[in-house]
Parts: sequence; C-alpha cells; structure tokens
Amino acid sequence: MSSSDIFIGETIGTAVLILLGGGVCAAVTLKRSKAQNAGWLAITFGWGFAVLTGAYLAGGVSGAHLNPAVTIGLAIKGGTEWSDVPLYLGSQLLGAMIGAVLVWLTYYGQFRAHLTDPEIVGAQTGEDGMVDKAAAPKAGPVLGIFSTGPEIRHAVQNLVTEIIATVVLVLAILTQGLNNEGNGLGTLGALVTALVVVGIGLSLGGPTGYAINPVRDLGPRIVHALLPLPNKGGSDWGYAWIPVAGPLIGGAIAGGLYNVAFA
Amino acid sequence: MSSSDIFIGETIGTAVLILLGGGVCAAVTLKRSKAQNAGWLAITFGWGFAVLTGAYLAGGVSGAHLNPAVTIGLAIKGGTEWSDVPLYLGSQLLGAMIGAVLVWLTYYGQFRAHLTDPEIVGAQTGEDGMVDKAAAPKAGPVLGIFSTGPEIRHAVQNLVTEIIATVVLVLAILTQGLNNEGNGLGTLGALVTALVVVGIGLSLGGPTGYAINPVRDLGPRIVHALLPLPNKGGSDWGYAWIPVAGPLIGGAIAGGLYNVAFA
Amino acid sequence: MSSSDIFIGETIGTAVLILLGGGVCAAVTLKRSKAQNAGWLAITFGWGFAVLTGAYLAGGVSGAHLNPAVTIGLAIKGGTEWSDVPLYLGSQLLGAMIGAVLVWLTYYGQFRAHLTDPEIVGAQTGEDGMVDKAAAPKAGPVLGIFSTGPEIRHAVQNLVTEIIATVVLVLAILTQGLNNEGNGLGTLGALVTALVVVGIGLSLGGPTGYAINPVRDLGPRIVHALLPLPNKGGSDWGYAWIPVAGPLIGGAIAGGLYNVAFA
Amino acid sequence: MSSSDIFIGETIGTAVLILLGGGVCAAVTLKRSKAQNAGWLAITFGWGFAVLTGAYLAGGVSGAHLNPAVTIGLAIKGGTEWSDVPLYLGSQLLGAMIGAVLVWLTYYGQFRAHLTDPEIVGAQTGEDGMVDKAAAPKAGPVLGIFSTGPEIRHAVQNLVTEIIATVVLVLAILTQGLNNEGNGLGTLGALVTALVVVGIGLSLGGPTGYAINPVRDLGPRIVHALLPLPNKGGSDWGYAWIPVAGPLIGGAIAGGLYNVAFA
Repeated sequence: MSSSDIFIGETIGTAVLILLGGGVCAAVTLKRSKAQNAGWLAITFGWGFAVLTGAYLAGGVSGAHLNPAVTIGLAIKGGTEWSDVPLYLGSQLLGAMIGAVLVWLTYYGQFRAHLTDPEIVGAQTGEDGMVDKAAAPKAGPVLGIFSTGPEIRHAVQNLVTEIIATVVLVLAILTQGLNNEGNGLGTLGALVTALVVVGIGLSLGGPTGYAINPVRDLGPRIVHALLPLPNKGGSDWGYAWIPVAGPLIGGAIAGGLYNVAFA
Repeated sequence: MSSSDIFIGETIGTAVLILLGGGVCAAVTLKRSKAQNAGWLAITFGWGFAVLTGAYLAGGVSGAHLNPAVTIGLAIKGGTEWSDVPLYLGSQLLGAMIGAVLVWLTYYGQFRAHLTDPEIVGAQTGEDGMVDKAAAPKAGPVLGIFSTGPEIRHAVQNLVTEIIATVVLVLAILTQGLNNEGNGLGTLGALVTALVVVGIGLSLGGPTGYAINPVRDLGPRIVHALLPLPNKGGSDWGYAWIPVAGPLIGGAIAGGLYNVAFA
Repeated sequence: MSSSDIFIGETIGTAVLILLGGGVCAAVTLKRSKAQNAGWLAITFGWGFAVLTGAYLAGGVSGAHLNPAVTIGLAIKGGTEWSDVPLYLGSQLLGAMIGAVLVWLTYYGQFRAHLTDPEIVGAQTGEDGMVDKAAAPKAGPVLGIFSTGPEIRHAVQNLVTEIIATVVLVLAILTQGLNNEGNGLGTLGALVTALVVVGIGLSLGGPTGYAINPVRDLGPRIVHALLPLPNKGGSDWGYAWIPVAGPLIGGAIAGGLYNVAFA
Repeated sequence: MSSSDIFIGETIGTAVLILLGGGVCAAVTLKRSKAQNAGWLAITFGWGFAVLTGAYLAGGVSGAHLNPAVTIGLAIKGGTEWSDVPLYLGSQLLGAMIGAVLVWLTYYGQFRAHLTDPEIVGAQTGEDGMVDKAAAPKAGPVLGIFSTGPEIRHAVQNLVTEIIATVVLVLAILTQGLNNEGNGLGTLGALVTALVVVGIGLSLGGPTGYAINPVRDLGPRIVHALLPLPNKGGSDWGYAWIPVAGPLIGGAIAGGLYNVAFA
C-alpha cells in the first residue's frame, strides 16, 4: 500500500466517518433540526452507518482503519507495518478535524439558532441572564456534538469502560480474517463492523458515550476549541486524555490477546 | 446496455424508490394511517429500504442509478456514457412522477381524511376558520409527503447542506468497485448503498430533509402541483431549485474528487 | 423439487413466518408483555425478520415462497411449475394456521390476562359493563394479532393498496435472478427480501396493515375463529376477501409485468 | 477442531455475547446511563448485535455455538461430536460468567448510583423507607440486567414459550447449510443469525424475556449472586431452572425435527 493511498483513504474515510457521526449528534441535539430528539437508537445507528460509509468508501484504498486503536491492534498482529503507523494516525487526525468542520458547515444555521436561543443559552448562564462563562457546565450540548463526555466523571471508571469497549471492537476486526471467505470480505466486513459498532454503542455506550477511537474525540474537540461559535462553552480539556488513552490501551490489549489466543 | 434497458430499469426503479420513499412520509404524516407519528428513525429507514428495493429490482437491468446525481458522477468517472445521460435523467424524472402518483393512490383515503379534517385544515386557515389560501404556509404537511423543505430557509446554507450530503452518497457509490469482490457486488452493493442512505438521512437530513437526488424532489413536486387534492396549499416553487441544483453540484464534485483522489 | 420438499419447506417455513409475524403483533398489543407499545418500527422490523427466518430456514428446501402471491408470480414467470402450485398454496395455508396456533401457545398467559382485563374488555362492551357481543367492534385488538384490518374501510381503496404493495414485493423477488451473483444468492436473497418487507411495511402499511400475502391473513383468521378465546369478538369475515384477492391480483400483475418488461 | 480452539472460541465468544447483551440491559435500565429508557427495540437490536459480535469473532475458531441449545442441536444433527459437548458447555458457562463480570465493570459507577438512589431502593423497601430484604421483589431491576424473568409466573407457560423460541433459533441455524453457498457462509451466517435473534426477541420475547440459551441466563445469575452489589435483592433461584431446561429441550426438539424433516 503506497503512502499516498494511506493518506487519501484515511483522511477522506475518517472525514466521512466524523461528518456522519458528528452529524447525527448535531441532528438529534440542535434546535430546528428535523431529527431533534430522535433518540438513542438514532444516534447508535447513525454512528454505525457512519463507520459503514467511511469504511466502504476507503476500504479498497487504505484498508479503512479510520481509528488509531485499529491501526495499533493491526500493527501488533502484524497486519500493518509499524513504519506506516505514523502516517495512518496523522491522516486519521486530519480527517477527523475536516469532518468536524463539515458538520459545522452542514448545520451552520442550526448551530446559530441553537446557540442564540435564550432558553438554551440561559441554561448555561448566571441568574441575571447574562452569559457567565465560569458557571457554564464544561460539557454543554454543543460540545457533545463534537466530543464524548462521561455521565459520571471518574477517571478510572471511564478509562475501564473505554478500554473494554475498544477491545471488543478491535478484536472483532482482527479476527475477521479467520472466517472462511474467499471473496466479498471488503464489503461484508465493512457491513458487519458497522453493525458491531451499533452494538457497542447500544450496549457499552451508556457511561461515556463510547469514543472507542482517539481521533473521533480529539479531532472534533480541537475544532470545537477553534470554531467561532457564540456561547459555545469550554472544550473540557480535563477529560480529553481519557478517550485518547482508553482506546489506545484497548487496541493494544486486543492485539496482544489476538496474538496469544487466536494466532 | 441498451436504451430500452435503461428506460425500463430507471423508470420502474425510480417509481418504486419514490413510491416507498414518499410512502413512508405519507405513512407517518397522515391522519388514520397506522404509522402516524412513527418518528424520524422510521422515515430514514423507510427511505433507505426504498433505495434498496428500487436498486435491487433495477440493478440487473439499468445499473440502478435512480438519481441524476449518481448518473452525473458516474459519467464524470467514465462508468456511464455521456450520450446515455439524457435518457437516464428523463427516465428517472418520469419514474419519480409515476411513483408520486402511486403514493397518492395507495394513501387515497388518508389524504382525503387528512385534508378535510377541520383541525388540520384550520391550522392553515385564517382565524375565522375559513380556508385562507393566501395565509397558508407554503410548505404544509402534505407538500412534505412529496418534496423536501428546509427548517431554516437560507439559500446558501441549504445548498451547502445538499451538496455535502450528495458528495457523501455519490462518492460511496463511485468507490464501491474498489472493494475486492469477485461476485455478489450487485446485491451487496444495493444493500450497503441503502444503509448509507439511512446514515445520510440520520446524520445530514436535519436541516433540509436530504433530497440528495434532483428527481426525488422535482418529480413529486410537479405531481403535487397537478393532483386534485383539496386544501393542498402551494408547491413552494421558490425553493424547488435548491434540491435540484445542490445534488447535481454534489454529484459533479464527487465525480471530480474520485478522478483526482481515487482513480 | 420433490413434493415432499415443497410440503415440508412451505409448511414449516410459513409456520415460522406467522409465528414470528403474529408474535410481534401479540408482543406489542397484549397486556403484561415486555414489548407492549413498542411501536410501529418494532412491528415492521418484526415482520421483516419473520420473513428472514422463514426464508432462511426453508430456502434450501422448497425455495421458500411462503406466500401464494409469490408462487403465482413465479409460475407466471416460469420459475415454478403450474402443477406444483396447489401443493405450494395448500402447504402455505396449513403452515399459516400452525403458526397462528403457536402464537397463541407462546402468549397464552398474556391473551388470558388481556382478554379478562375489565378495562380492555369494557371498551368492547355496553355501558353497563357487561360484555355486549353485538356492540363489540368487528376488529378488536385481539383480531389484529391474527389478521389485518383497514383504518378506513373502503373495498376499492383497500384493494388498490394491497395490490400496489404486493406488486412491489413480488417484482423485487422475480428480478433478483438478474443480479450478477455466482453464489450466496440464497442467504443474501433472503436478507434483502426481508428488508424489502420492512420497507413495504414502513411505507405502504399505513392504510391496511399490509397483508401482501393471502395465507398470512386467511390462515390466522380461521384460527382466530376456532380458538376458545374469551371475549375475542368477531373475525371480521366481511373484510377477509380483500387481503386474499388483493395480493393474488398483485402477484399476477407482477408476473405479467416481469414477462413484458424484464424477461 | 482442537480442544483449545473450542475452549478459546467459546469462552471468549460467549463472554463478548454476554458483555454486549447484558450491557444493553444495563444501558437501558440504570440511572445515569445515556441510554436509559431507550426502549424495547434498543434491547432487541442490542442482543442481536451481541450475537453478531460474538459469532463473528469466534466463528473461525470454534464455530461459535455460544449456546448449549445450539451445541445439543448440532450434536443431534451430527455436526458436532458428542465427546466435544462437555467442553463446549463448560466453556460457554465460563464465558457467560466472565461476560457478566465485565458488564459490572463497564457500568460500575451506574450500578452504584442506581442502587444507592433512595427512590429506586425505596421501591424495594418497606414503608418506613428502610431496606426490607424480605419484602423486596425477587426480580428487581438489577437482576433483570443479568438474567431473564417472566411477566406472568407460570412454569408450564414459561417453559413452552422458551421451548418454542429456541426451536426457531436452533432450526434456523441447523438449516443454514442447506442454502446453496460456496463461500461467505461464516460472515453472512453470523449476520443472518444475529437478525434472526433480533426477530425472536421482538416477536417471542414478550412473555419471558427470551433466554433461548441456558448459559445466557445461568452464568450471569451466578455472578449476580456472588457480586458485592448493595441492595441487589435476591437472585430468583426458583425460576432459574426454566431458562435452562426450556432452551435445552428446544435445542433437542430442533435437532430431532431437522433429522426427521430436513436431513
């Protein structure tokens, strides 16, 4: 696989992943979106089909990792060269940032309507109705469109949840070559991986919102910090290391487990 | 591919696409439908399986574009002859109009019950309870069964949203040949494309209702204008160019992006 | 295909189809079911996966028609011998009746609890609270577990709706051989057909509840008439011919359309 | 298939099945989970994709039975050696217990918040607000995360429901070899089996919560009895034999039916 294939596939594929994944969060969150309050099932299917679209589109180009945890797991298994890892990771982060900007462009009017609505903004302000940045919650509804946040903030618990969820994802991807398929792996593999992601969301997403992918969280968080959104609140950098470290550890554990148990 | 294959496949396939796609909008909107208020997830899955049915049915005949944006993208890629493009587009528009008429026939009684209900009609009338055509909103609930409309009316924003959503759709379709499949492409491709459309609906459909297909919007809008529905309100022709131009631009961008990045 | 293969495949396959299809209606309708009020999406996915299970199970034995409309369409296309048609239809009707009895056995306690609940039964009785069989609506909630009924009772409209929905189903099944697949047709075909049925339910099921299969309606209606359920109300025989005739006409139209346009 | 393949595939595969299956029950039940009250459709899709993930991951290693009822059915059919059955069953039970512990780890904070919430705990206590273990219902909301329980407690009815649902599951798995597929069986088979499980849940899960797998119920119930959860209530051992016996009987019936009708 050439460097340019990796760069193009991972950048475009991850951009599409985050455009659709962040998009469904915008769709169910923002005022004056047709999908507002469409519910948890909509969010989990939306993220799953985001994986499907990105993986389907980039599968034939770069193998469609779209996730540093997958790249690390595959490198430990021996399916990806370690020397390619930095390019994979950099392309994924760039793609995730591009995807987050595209979410903002797609929902430009909705962001504006939502963030200037007195009732919504008021919930993040002091009693006098003026915006009070110090009193604003760290993770407001707009940050939730970009990045994950825990329901109960506890570093060890949140880390354990992200590690367990990522091990399931990466182990499923690593073992797919064991199924006795002559062809059709690419498309079927993308489809099953997508539905596995729906399943992880439904089953393991309750505590932390299932980052299970470092760039899925970090890329959009950087974009949230940079975008000129009014009343956007903080970017919650205190939590930001958990959805990066947890999935990386989970990917490495899955790679090791694969080598010990399945290889 | 013969002209008659293109005509038959695209006309029947697009008719089925719009029958099922418009059908789910009728099902969740109209009074005395068992599916009334079934929600956004029902709408997005309904449109996705509409694509699946049309594509599965016409895939072996005409390749099942069912969408001028797809035809344009494929022509730019070189997968479709430019000389076949007018026949594709004409057949798709005809099929979309036939499909919209079939929605009306399927839900004939529900349209009648809905449009003569004093409470629903009253919402579109003046204070004295008489139908006041001038005061009626341009895009009432019945037009929404036929065509898309934006939540926030702003030409540039709406156009950008439609372009972005269509680029995702057409790029996914153009790259599917890159996956390493010997056979099964037709059916698996139809299935994955359908789920990509569910994903685009969930993630990018919030602002404009995701036309992502010029004839999906234009064909039924023409039928709405022609059908003898009581109290149907206007056909909102002021907005009609956006869901035509946006997807065409998006299809062309996807074709160009494919040639630059993936070919 | 031997007569015994047809008999076994169609009887068991249709029994499973109706067990799961009627089962989801029981699940969302009956008091003291965990799935009560799970909604229209649950019903439509439930029927789709009922088709999947029956078709997957019987596909390798009898071809898994499970529906006289499909058998008629295939006979017109030339894919099934006319001399086999009576055996297909008889086995399907027998299977549908067995399936309806199995629904009753699976939900025995729930039927009992539901039909002896004073509030629910009261809704079907006179003002004095005594069961008044004459005043009971023809199609109560319990008949809805077995058979379909229209939201607006109008023979021509209901027939047109059933015909249109069945043409879509049967045409999709007839054209599947046109997709260029070497193998995997059985399982992929069952999967796509199941999702097409979900789509038809979501999109075209609003007016009549989409029988789209004569035995799906007639078999369980016979069982409803025979079962010793307390307070069960009438079996609405006045409507019974429509979900038989409509799908048969639809299957024949699909077969003819296939021969004219696709063959 | 070597003993170590069976042990590894069934233990890890069943652990993933129960982690995701129990996980979705935790997700929709527990306070301070993002998925609380996500509904029956979320539960049934969650269990289905739990099957998909476990089966996809272990399919190439041990054949991914993940369920004693499947193992018994396959042994009766002749697809699994009787001498391997004890190892399959023991590995499945071990895996199910590991999976249940992982659910507890993933939702540690949510369990704690839920079980110390005065309103929730109060519902299981006496009038004075003190925890009254004798008065607590046998199957509280926390046991429901681990094991199944009937809506109407009646041994024969509950057993019949579990038997019927398991026959459908195992018969579908036993007949899959009859479909004319050259390759792709592993992944497609896992996908279709998963959707069949969604269907069984939607359609037949109403009365008992569809164990359809002895270790799915017994393993987590043992873990519930052992875990140091505050205010957890009893483990309802009086019901525990039904979701073990019912699926085992169902698996055996399916194996016999296969040999009589399909072999």
